[in-house]
Amino acid sequence: MARWEPDSRGRLRRAALELYGERGFEQTTVAEIAARAGLTERTFFRQFADKREVLFAGSEALEQRLVEAVAEAPDPLSPIAAVARGLEAVGAALPARELARARQEVIAANAELRERELAKLASLAAALAKALRERGLEESHASLAAEVGIAVFRVAFEGWIDASEDREFAELVGDALDRLRALAAEAGPSAAVGGA
Amino acid sequence: MARWEPDSRGRLRRAALELYGERGFEQTTVAEIAARAGLTERTFFRQFADKREVLFAGSEALEQRLVEAVAEAPDPLSPIAAVARGLEAVGAALPARELARARQEVIAANAELRERELAKLASLAAALAKALRERGLEESHASLAAEVGIAVFRVAFEGWIDASEDREFAELVGDALDRLRALAAEAGPSAAVGGA
Repeated sequence: MARWEPDSRGRLRRAALELYGERGFEQTTVAEIAARAGLTERTFFRQFADKREVLFAGSEALEQRLVEAVAEAPDPLSPIAAVARGLEAVGAALPARELARARQEVIAANAELRERELAKLASLAAALAKALRERGLEESHASLAAEVGIAVFRVAFEGWIDASEDREFAELVGDALDRLRALAAEAGPSAAVGGA
Repeated sequence: MARWEPDSRGRLRRAALELYGERGFEQTTVAEIAARAGLTERTFFRQFADKREVLFAGSEALEQRLVEAVAEAPDPLSPIAAVARGLEAVGAALPARELARARQEVIAANAELRERELAKLASLAAALAKALRERGLEESHASLAAEVGIAVFRVAFEGWIDASEDREFAELVGDALDRLRALAAEAGPSAAVGGA
């Protein structure tokens, strides 16, 4: 019983985010994270491959949830409505808002972490496009719907982690989709014709 | 006169793309690129900071053209129509199609180059959002229009470099915008409401 550590994963994550915020990601060691959490380095490495994985460990679960929700959306739903279902499901897989905010500040401060975040978003777009193709959508349509879906995700997520925003993620997704509809409606057939 | 090298920049670019394609990006040296182009290493370094810059040197000009076209779009144009103008202007700044295809193959084969490409696209989205804010668009609207604009750019660009595609970039942008309008119209207010 003495070796059982309640919520060691959550404690390590919170300790890491605190330290990354205080000292910077580069300057923080795994030993310091474990000490702050009151745990051993060995426990850290049972939970995370390295200190970077503390920040990105949730993204596979998030991608899986997105893909499953799109796959399970009822057949008559339009591609964008299926994407909307996927993004709502993602909302349920997001971490606590304060942790997400702290994580985003750490990532924004480090070029390597920003690149990793972009790579994760590109992977999310590719997984979403694949899920849409599996719903029978033709390739270039699936790519467009997926890229637009990730654009909606980014805007909703940025809003969600904004300190002045109280609404839930799913509501922000709905809001971004409403604005997308209004925005795209103004791209009349003449929009792409050149000349002032 | 003997030291004047006609189109040394273009020759170095073509030589580099050939070698990256044949041997891989990592395995190619600047000395080999210069030799293939029939030029000196010194000439290479007058044109490019390093062998990676051969692949990304055009992206600042592309970003500038996008931003200028959005800034110069007539006032009554909607945000998405201004974005469309920007994307058309980008079309005029793209390299020859065969070079763009060769470049994309090199980038697709190397994780570091893929990350750099994603960072350039994120920078393009940020520059586009800024240009839209300067047209008076509120921040979150500008972000959404910019992210959606980059989604359209990516899909049009992927189509353009596809071997089976003959249409010009501007036409593919127009096509993607038409599909965006149809796609977004299906995101009715009910799309974001949960439950099957």
